[in-house]
Amino acid sequence: MSLIVQKFGGSSVADAESIKRVARRVANTRKAGHDVVVVVSAMGDTTDELLDLAAEVTSAVTPSRELDMLLTAGERISMAALAMAINDIGVQAKSFTGSQAGMITDGVHGAARLVEVKPDRIRESLEAGNIAIVAGFQGMNRQSRDITTLGRGGSDTTAVALAAALNADVCEIYSDVDGVFTADPRIVPTAHKLNTVTSEEMLEMAANGAKILHLRSVEYARRFNLKLHVRSSFSELEGTIVIPENSAELTPTHLKEIPLEQPLISGVAHDRGQAKITVVGVPDVPGSAARVFGLINEAKINIDMIVQNVSTDRPNVTDISFTLDQAHGPLALQALEKAQAEIGFEEVIYNEAVGKLSLVGAGMKTNPGVSFTFFEALSNAGVNVEMISTSEIRISVITELSKLDDAVRAVHTAFALDTEGEATVYGGTGR
Amino acid sequence: MSLIVQKFGGSSVADAESIKRVARRVANTRKAGHDVVVVVSAMGDTTDELLDLAAEVTSAVTPSRELDMLLTAGERISMAALAMAINDIGVQAKSFTGSQAGMITDGVHGAARLVEVKPDRIRESLEAGNIAIVAGFQGMNRQSRDITTLGRGGSDTTAVALAAALNADVCEIYSDVDGVFTADPRIVPTAHKLNTVTSEEMLEMAANGAKILHLRSVEYARRFNLKLHVRSSFSELEGTIVIPENSAELTPTHLKEIPLEQPLISGVAHDRGQAKITVVGVPDVPGSAARVFGLINEAKINIDMIVQNVSTDRPNVTDISFTLDQAHGPLALQALEKAQAEIGFEEVIYNEAVGKLSLVGAGMKTNPGVSFTFFEALSNAGVNVEMISTSEIRISVITELSKLDDAVRAVHTAFALDTEGEATVYGGTGR
Repeated sequence: MSLIVQKFGGSSVADAESIKRVARRVANTRKAGHDVVVVVSAMGDTTDELLDLAAEVTSAVTPSRELDMLLTAGERISMAALAMAINDIGVQAKSFTGSQAGMITDGVHGAARLVEVKPDRIRESLEAGNIAIVAGFQGMNRQSRDITTLGRGGSDTTAVALAAALNADVCEIYSDVDGVFTADPRIVPTAHKLNTVTSEEMLEMAANGAKILHLRSVEYARRFNLKLHVRSSFSELEGTIVIPENSAELTPTHLKEIPLEQPLISGVAHDRGQAKITVVGVPDVPGSAARVFGLINEAKINIDMIVQNVSTDRPNVTDISFTLDQAHGPLALQALEKAQAEIGFEEVIYNEAVGKLSLVGAGMKTNPGVSFTFFEALSNAGVNVEMISTSEIRISVITELSKLDDAVRAVHTAFALDTEGEATVYGGTGR
Repeated sequence: MSLIVQKFGGSSVADAESIKRVARRVANTRKAGHDVVVVVSAMGDTTDELLDLAAEVTSAVTPSRELDMLLTAGERISMAALAMAINDIGVQAKSFTGSQAGMITDGVHGAARLVEVKPDRIRESLEAGNIAIVAGFQGMNRQSRDITTLGRGGSDTTAVALAAALNADVCEIYSDVDGVFTADPRIVPTAHKLNTVTSEEMLEMAANGAKILHLRSVEYARRFNLKLHVRSSFSELEGTIVIPENSAELTPTHLKEIPLEQPLISGVAHDRGQAKITVVGVPDVPGSAARVFGLINEAKINIDMIVQNVSTDRPNVTDISFTLDQAHGPLALQALEKAQAEIGFEEVIYNEAVGKLSLVGAGMKTNPGVSFTFFEALSNAGVNVEMISTSEIRISVITELSKLDDAVRAVHTAFALDTEGEATVYGGTGR
């Protein structure tokens, strides 16, 4: 008998019918002889509706103890309804809040980090023969005993953290897509589902625009050497297995798909959510760039790629460009404009019409031909590359937004990722 | 500085605007220098919507651990939203679940009884200068650490129990009516609001159809010698003060309204929710009646009035009639029909077309003229009395349902309770 953690997102429990479908699925897993822990998100639009209420009763919705208290009502509803639906088909289930499930966090409301996972009540409940249903996204600050939420991707994190703490055999992440695809099938109709992917590759894909798994949960799974299974709650098909690098399963399973001699490319991720800021005419003296990035750091904004150009016709100034999440654009501009006089640059140019394309694959570590094929494909497709960054298993470029889809298709084809015919299910690897 | 507990029902926090209105009211009480604890029900129709969801995912909605978990999401939403609205106008507020507020109950899901109230966190929060917002209707079973709900009138009970445990100066119960009226103004347009009523009288009124306060919370307040103030959240008017009998305030304040020589009548309550069961042709031997009531008792059904008639033309049999809540009718009929052969009665007649009228007043204890005036008024109005029961401060009768409104008006007039003109606000003393 194995222990399986199953996580169902909001679209999988959007209404009563969906909840009943998930209930049957969970009950079947239990009937097959497994111990089952289920993590659920709030139903469909519940979180948005609660945020709307917050916006109606306050002048500005900001993270707070009370907003967390409000939002956690969403998972309380979905978890209780799911437990009731499972009980109704004759299988024992009990639901637990994040606090009851031992999800102990720090006190940062709206973006709490887990500091400890103590699922004693979940273990007891499993031993008593129950399916344990746990509210995703939420925890409790031990010091203040206040309810907290984990922020973006919180329910995935709950599932992965519980699976790690309970030493589960696998953590299944259910959504409305069939698994991880080589590219977004809305852009690349010939993209295909990956049967397996390493957690290292998944990490690069998640960090570079693939929305199917949140970066944070992939990091957590990788750290605790946990196997993830990304699959659809609308079909019985196997999805994509995300395997920790040092797993014994890795080599034989993962290499099955592609001949050994070829570079192992997992897929092409893209991201339309980036923006590019160019600080024009920064005095070319030591410390200028440091001052620019110091400001951004103080505003707690993560930046991604950086390019510094020395202008040949103006020898004493330089231009500094960097990319960041569009959501942080206004904050970064504000910080820069405030410091314009002090740093002495000429102007700031802000551009959201950029796209980021990333090629991810563990095989490129050892295959020098990858970058040649990559840039050749972009060049042949007439795509101009504005910025570049690389890791051992990834190459990313910033392009004009209008060229992004062409670029994704060109790279997908160049690495022989196309399959015959069209993928039938949206792969969800982009936004 | 005094400590005031304020309870707002679902209609007072039905939407964002109402929540903001309540927030201003609560904040003003705080600004006036009082410590404030607020107990809230779920917003408007939330509880019904959650029950609808439960009905959609299960074949039958029955009290359970999971249903309680589901329903308690309702108060979680209203309390957090209210705390946010109060914080937004610059006054500190924190919300607490029933469990966080120390509402410890037994384990009867859907109808839990309080076993202990330990509001340590509420005290701490008050000392830190916060308004404490507490979820009504809910608690926690200490043994299983499961969330429970208190059942009908639960939020009133939460408020009164917290007020007692915190030794509050007054517990204010806010709803959409102005206070306790001498009769339901929908039936008696000349009914007037009572400025004060004793908790003993309130108990009789609540037990006999007045819906403004739940019997259970009145019992609790009386036991802990707590002053209640029943008032409207839609106006600043004083409502009705419910004073414990042994309160020092009682005599001067309470007697102010009515000349000392007259009987002290508080009002006329009515109840359309009763049913009458007649068991016809019960063998007139010792133990027959005991067996009938034994059955009803085993089914855990409360009965109210009882009449046993000896039939003159059939000397060996008797008819037994009793009244009970309509909700328990089917269960009682089932229990009786199952035992028909054993007890040997002829048939059971079930009648919901009955009304109950109760005259309540502490003054009737010592005034023998009350019952004469009462029955004379009913007789003059052509109302036939089917059953009678009395306590020291109440006379109740069962009448034909179609005669109930006439009966209420006749009694109200006979005891000089009519005021000039019409009452402008619904008094909510009937259902």
